[in-house]
Amino acid sequence: MAKLWHKDYSLDTLIEQFTVGDDNVLDRDLVNADCVASMAHADMLRSMAVLTSEQYDSLRKELRAIIEMSDRGEFPIEPADEDCHTAIENHLTAALGESGKRIHTGRSRNDQVIAALRLYTRAYLLELQAACLELASGLADFAQTHRNLPMPGRTHMQIAMPSSVGLWAGAFAEQIVDDLRLAAAAYQLNNRSPLGSAASYGVPLALDRERVADALAFSGVQNNVLYVNNSRGKLESIVLDAVSQIMLTLSKLAQDLILFSMPEFCYFTLPREICTGSSIMPQKRNPAMLELIRAKTFTVTGYCLQVKGIVAGLPSGYNQDFQETKAALIGGARIGLASVRVMNLVIGKLTVNEDRLIQGFIPEIYATDRALELVAEGMPFRDAYREIGAHLDDVQGMDPHQAIEKKHYRGAPGNLGLDLVRGDIARMRGEMEREGARIDKKIENLVGRPVAFYR
Amino acid sequence: MAKLWHKDYSLDTLIEQFTVGDDNVLDRDLVNADCVASMAHADMLRSMAVLTSEQYDSLRKELRAIIEMSDRGEFPIEPADEDCHTAIENHLTAALGESGKRIHTGRSRNDQVIAALRLYTRAYLLELQAACLELASGLADFAQTHRNLPMPGRTHMQIAMPSSVGLWAGAFAEQIVDDLRLAAAAYQLNNRSPLGSAASYGVPLALDRERVADALAFSGVQNNVLYVNNSRGKLESIVLDAVSQIMLTLSKLAQDLILFSMPEFCYFTLPREICTGSSIMPQKRNPAMLELIRAKTFTVTGYCLQVKGIVAGLPSGYNQDFQETKAALIGGARIGLASVRVMNLVIGKLTVNEDRLIQGFIPEIYATDRALELVAEGMPFRDAYREIGAHLDDVQGMDPHQAIEKKHYRGAPGNLGLDLVRGDIARMRGEMEREGARIDKKIENLVGRPVAFYR
Amino acid sequence: MAKLWHKDYSLDTLIEQFTVGDDNVLDRDLVNADCVASMAHADMLRSMAVLTSEQYDSLRKELRAIIEMSDRGEFPIEPADEDCHTAIENHLTAALGESGKRIHTGRSRNDQVIAALRLYTRAYLLELQAACLELASGLADFAQTHRNLPMPGRTHMQIAMPSSVGLWAGAFAEQIVDDLRLAAAAYQLNNRSPLGSAASYGVPLALDRERVADALAFSGVQNNVLYVNNSRGKLESIVLDAVSQIMLTLSKLAQDLILFSMPEFCYFTLPREICTGSSIMPQKRNPAMLELIRAKTFTVTGYCLQVKGIVAGLPSGYNQDFQETKAALIGGARIGLASVRVMNLVIGKLTVNEDRLIQGFIPEIYATDRALELVAEGMPFRDAYREIGAHLDDVQGMDPHQAIEKKHYRGAPGNLGLDLVRGDIARMRGEMEREGARIDKKIENLVGRPVAFYR
Amino acid sequence: MAKLWHKDYSLDTLIEQFTVGDDNVLDRDLVNADCVASMAHADMLRSMAVLTSEQYDSLRKELRAIIEMSDRGEFPIEPADEDCHTAIENHLTAALGESGKRIHTGRSRNDQVIAALRLYTRAYLLELQAACLELASGLADFAQTHRNLPMPGRTHMQIAMPSSVGLWAGAFAEQIVDDLRLAAAAYQLNNRSPLGSAASYGVPLALDRERVADALAFSGVQNNVLYVNNSRGKLESIVLDAVSQIMLTLSKLAQDLILFSMPEFCYFTLPREICTGSSIMPQKRNPAMLELIRAKTFTVTGYCLQVKGIVAGLPSGYNQDFQETKAALIGGARIGLASVRVMNLVIGKLTVNEDRLIQGFIPEIYATDRALELVAEGMPFRDAYREIGAHLDDVQGMDPHQAIEKKHYRGAPGNLGLDLVRGDIARMRGEMEREGARIDKKIENLVGRPVAFYR
Repeated sequence: MAKLWHKDYSLDTLIEQFTVGDDNVLDRDLVNADCVASMAHADMLRSMAVLTSEQYDSLRKELRAIIEMSDRGEFPIEPADEDCHTAIENHLTAALGESGKRIHTGRSRNDQVIAALRLYTRAYLLELQAACLELASGLADFAQTHRNLPMPGRTHMQIAMPSSVGLWAGAFAEQIVDDLRLAAAAYQLNNRSPLGSAASYGVPLALDRERVADALAFSGVQNNVLYVNNSRGKLESIVLDAVSQIMLTLSKLAQDLILFSMPEFCYFTLPREICTGSSIMPQKRNPAMLELIRAKTFTVTGYCLQVKGIVAGLPSGYNQDFQETKAALIGGARIGLASVRVMNLVIGKLTVNEDRLIQGFIPEIYATDRALELVAEGMPFRDAYREIGAHLDDVQGMDPHQAIEKKHYRGAPGNLGLDLVRGDIARMRGEMEREGARIDKKIENLVGRPVAFYR
Repeated sequence: MAKLWHKDYSLDTLIEQFTVGDDNVLDRDLVNADCVASMAHADMLRSMAVLTSEQYDSLRKELRAIIEMSDRGEFPIEPADEDCHTAIENHLTAALGESGKRIHTGRSRNDQVIAALRLYTRAYLLELQAACLELASGLADFAQTHRNLPMPGRTHMQIAMPSSVGLWAGAFAEQIVDDLRLAAAAYQLNNRSPLGSAASYGVPLALDRERVADALAFSGVQNNVLYVNNSRGKLESIVLDAVSQIMLTLSKLAQDLILFSMPEFCYFTLPREICTGSSIMPQKRNPAMLELIRAKTFTVTGYCLQVKGIVAGLPSGYNQDFQETKAALIGGARIGLASVRVMNLVIGKLTVNEDRLIQGFIPEIYATDRALELVAEGMPFRDAYREIGAHLDDVQGMDPHQAIEKKHYRGAPGNLGLDLVRGDIARMRGEMEREGARIDKKIENLVGRPVAFYR
Repeated sequence: MAKLWHKDYSLDTLIEQFTVGDDNVLDRDLVNADCVASMAHADMLRSMAVLTSEQYDSLRKELRAIIEMSDRGEFPIEPADEDCHTAIENHLTAALGESGKRIHTGRSRNDQVIAALRLYTRAYLLELQAACLELASGLADFAQTHRNLPMPGRTHMQIAMPSSVGLWAGAFAEQIVDDLRLAAAAYQLNNRSPLGSAASYGVPLALDRERVADALAFSGVQNNVLYVNNSRGKLESIVLDAVSQIMLTLSKLAQDLILFSMPEFCYFTLPREICTGSSIMPQKRNPAMLELIRAKTFTVTGYCLQVKGIVAGLPSGYNQDFQETKAALIGGARIGLASVRVMNLVIGKLTVNEDRLIQGFIPEIYATDRALELVAEGMPFRDAYREIGAHLDDVQGMDPHQAIEKKHYRGAPGNLGLDLVRGDIARMRGEMEREGARIDKKIENLVGRPVAFYR
Repeated sequence: MAKLWHKDYSLDTLIEQFTVGDDNVLDRDLVNADCVASMAHADMLRSMAVLTSEQYDSLRKELRAIIEMSDRGEFPIEPADEDCHTAIENHLTAALGESGKRIHTGRSRNDQVIAALRLYTRAYLLELQAACLELASGLADFAQTHRNLPMPGRTHMQIAMPSSVGLWAGAFAEQIVDDLRLAAAAYQLNNRSPLGSAASYGVPLALDRERVADALAFSGVQNNVLYVNNSRGKLESIVLDAVSQIMLTLSKLAQDLILFSMPEFCYFTLPREICTGSSIMPQKRNPAMLELIRAKTFTVTGYCLQVKGIVAGLPSGYNQDFQETKAALIGGARIGLASVRVMNLVIGKLTVNEDRLIQGFIPEIYATDRALELVAEGMPFRDAYREIGAHLDDVQGMDPHQAIEKKHYRGAPGNLGLDLVRGDIARMRGEMEREGARIDKKIENLVGRPVAFYR
């Protein structure tokens, strides 16, 4: 079908391919979002009498039909369509004639794309939060189960001081919860309606932006119409930065698990049904999924960098460069969610080998404890440190369980405070579920059925 | 003086230089923070009877003396000291003997470094927010002043639709305010006490972490002691991500100003006292500070990338790699604040050339407005679009002021809604000032005088 | 079909999806390469009597059949196959039984992947060089045509000194030729046979690595078998770095063209058949392909960063992380080649507007020339500079053509030296064509038909 | 002193600080280079009769005096000077009057900066190559010494197949030699004279660019004067890319050494005089220098990214953004060279623990060897693989030394081919030394004494 801006001459084929890029593939993820946003826009056009009620009803019905096709994987976006927005308008015009030709009144593809991306991102961030909270909860449970299990604490990857499996797992539970604070900031910035911005400068029509925002369950309108377009890409990079923080946490967890499941440590065992094999070595059980999480951390950082680089130095208003941020957003989003889910599965299947953990408690791990015993007898710390340091071979071992229990102030191995992180998880889960229910209700009001914006 | 971990053999000189790196220079920025954190730690040691009241008083006095020396630029950190923490402990031991040897009881350089960086970062983020709010406020004023001044709106850097100087400046005011939401999230994650973590695994002493947190005006304790160390670098990258968002906004503003002050546009004039010259061309007035802001946006992104790359894939616990994140944090922080201040100065000195702005209103800028007039007469938008497109040479000009006024819904050029962003600025300024006053009071309680943590 | 490392239990589905990733899609680009490398490997196995001549012939025939299917887009790689290497081995085993089960003797998927990537990369780099030389040649022609056409020279985007369209275009021609020196270094490092490395540590068989290398037209063998695997990812990043340098050149060219085709300059006109339109603004002709080249420069940099980040800090030997570098290489490679081709098309269609170029010669552009006239009269330069600077309003214009001609030393606007770059282009083209012919001949010897390794 | 472009009004202080940045510090590294380039330029001005022989002689003498001051650390560059170029011109004018005012004839700070950076970079790359060849040579010696010492080969960090310390070290020797091919490409691109470019557009004087290029021992002139400026930043990124490849190699080597010196492996022991200690744990011997190399790999990548980001999308001609690339180049260069030297020292001091290496040879490491024994008996590989895989517990151990020796084809553990890499090292060292001698001679001709361009 024709492009929305079709002229009476043809675009060079090489240029056409280059400018369309992968949009016709990527946009499969945005069809539902664009249909719903179009419905809200049409509803406003009806309130402005640009559309009749009949026209609105037929548009709504047809948009719902597109959603259903899309859910079945049957709504095609041809390269000649450029993107989902054109495919949808073309479909509406073919099916309904004049109503289809009217739906673009008062909007531009620019704000359509932004609106679709915000609905997509909103749904994504809710799923990401849910998955993260499940992982944090799994880690907190794991920490609780193994709270008294000794584990050598390391710094510089060398043996440092007595620690516990509980402290180790609890650290990650807290970290993921903290990571979600950035996802929450991204959520708030994202959850505002861009519609009415048009091509960045508004239109000479009496658009009712609040009505549209409310129908789409946005928290409100993003005010300045130029700012709407100027925030394109930036918002994507904020989302990707939030994802990258989660990946950084998973990366450390993955590295710990890869290291500590090597035969030389064997603190943890990864069950064979989550490990991959080798084409040549019959014995291999490889922690491929953990290595991929480690690697994909950089994939996400790289995507984020692409987006920030693209928007840096762009002048105000829409620039085609923005198109190039879409694949990075969608690619990075998918990686983040899949990685969290995979890690959650790994933690759920992890076995802990107490004997190997205890074996790691070589005497020198107690050097600091022994120095602090001298401190308890009145020696200044720096003198005690030097005294022990000068006679390292004489450092006596101790019971690793007791070594943990003696560190019993808040947050230390003997006092993990898991109730705190569990309280945070419960609170965040509640807020998230209320927000999800609020949105679902509004969308169902508008569309007449639930819609999956991220899948 | 000796390193804290001094042994009876010497470190290879090349290795020593390499491992100390620039810490002795960078740490000048952290001396005050470490002194104040050491005071809070000493106060706790006194409450635990590890220090007597006399010992505490002498330590407090000597730490205050170091702050004063540091404020005068007279507290030296020699390469042989490795860093400020060692220099301070060595100074205390030299001055006070046994009290100095006791102050390290129950802590590690790891949590000392983190504590100092948090106090530094907290002060920095407050200054950054203040500067950003000033810039946002200046932009809102500029927008208000020029709210009716027409400016060609562009997309793809080509002439698009009528816009105004007010819309343009207002967009940036809103963007900066939004950027501060990420700085606020970073602030919250930063403003928790790491002390008690020691070398990542706690110590077998009855430390009172809440007491220390309160004395330092932190909002509370970061719970899990391993998480404290695991968050090193990540937090730095969160701060730098927040700074990078501000830089992205400034970068666009800089690019607009560079473009629109070229002689071919001359929408804006930059006064000569902020422009630099050329060594060979007598006539040049270069917008060097804007070009540098554009460039430094990538410097900050690069710093952030350094930090994320460094921490990705690091196993749990302290790793020396963290040291390499310090220069990136401090470097990126300085750039962010300086750039905001420079931009604020530029906006305050900008002249607007109405005649050149009006000249930009070539007839085709009204093509969309003319299409929407056909829509008002009942033609479907897509038909109107094609009709105008087929007769572009016939598009009639109109009065640019009226073209703006006709776009009068919320956020559009004729209805900027500057009260909204001004309300946000006022609210954020109030919160920030209350937080600053709260901290200053606590710190003065502890130290007996105000302390500059960022300068 | 089954994985090569298939066991008697099933891999968790979520893990399976995660570890296979997009390999089954990406590997479509590697099927031909793997078939040809497998043929060379089988030929060696025949020489070692691991395969009979009949087995070799049937394998060769079947591998050729796979190439033909793949060329028609009809060789499927199912997610269950993991990748093309498994799909091919499974296909051979299904078609030929025992011969298929023997082909993996003495190799690993690791060195198979590397071999396929090297054949793919070699073909890619030859195509990239050809496209770059064509663009450089087009730019040199453009420079020649417009060698006397004045163009305002700018620094800091402000008017600086007299220049010419020829100087401008010639600068890019030389830059692209220089960029190819990095592609050439990447080519040499790439063009060595990895086979025989197996899983990084070789095998206890008498493999003849030189025979395989020769059959595949590699320049030789990459010696150390562990280094073969350790170079995975690094080589990809070297290729992407070379592509990124080309993109940086195109990015500057794109930015110049976007700027200088704005209506305020109109030095250049982009014909409408290569510009895109707007969905809302009927008049728009957007330089979308140039904006995308500008944006894609960062996409390539980001891909390169992904790869470098992934391999940094990986221990020796194969790690699954390497898998994550494949999409970056293939994605970045495609962008680079497409961008060069698009730019070549743009340069070929560019119109130059002499009157608008001349208009840019405001008097101050001659300030330095006038200062140098005072120097010619004996005044020291710094005094002449100050003299002119103090009386800028008195600077007299001159003929722009003469201003260019007066700068006639080597490389200056009046003496472009285009023969130099043209000589380089001719020489590089010759070398490339000889290398291509050499490879084609060897491959046809092995396969019995030509094979497209990059398409 | 005054800026070169000093006007009759003052630059705003904030702007001045911001635009000067750290140039007055960074430029200490460029003083010698600028003095020598200025000498060559003055020599040409004499040949053009812009300077008399007396003027030239006095300039040469004074420039030599500046070099001597600079070598003693006594040539000050004040912030008010902006950079070394201004400081030097001001010094010359103060000392010599009119001659100083004439030296800027026919050049711009832009090409001066570029010339100085090229001389600096040339000297740096020669030192970097020398250090790399020394490290590669040390690794080859280490490989030779331990060529028969078994070492468990790993993939996915799990036990894979028999390998040797010789294979491990030899892999790194070859990798570093390959990395130098990129440094060599960077060297060639760098080693051309930019002078004559002036502010990007040449000057209307009869400059003799070849004479200057020859005096400075450049391989020739970079032709197009606009290209000279357009290559700024790009060249820096090419150098940093080359450094980053070396860092990637060191990063892997560092990670291997950190891992394999953990107590659980103890394959290698790092002597205590190169390890650092802990402030709290008396027993710690930390491989801090290796962790820092691992971290600094990302610092270099980040610097490179800064430079590429800065130059991407910049229009032609000089832009102030280039200034921001200087710190990245100098910072990244220093890190690269220091890291190579530190690693060389580490390799020289490494102890190998044969018993711990042998301990790593658990029976499953021979699974593939056993499968290939079945192949030798006629079983197809894939069947043999499955057979062994089904009875992993029955896999018999073997003598690790024999397991290595059985892999005796080229590049395999039993046939390291160290003569190849040693041949490369010798050849490259010879070329480098000839090039160094050639340059030294030319420079001494010009200056009358040797000059250190990098220190």
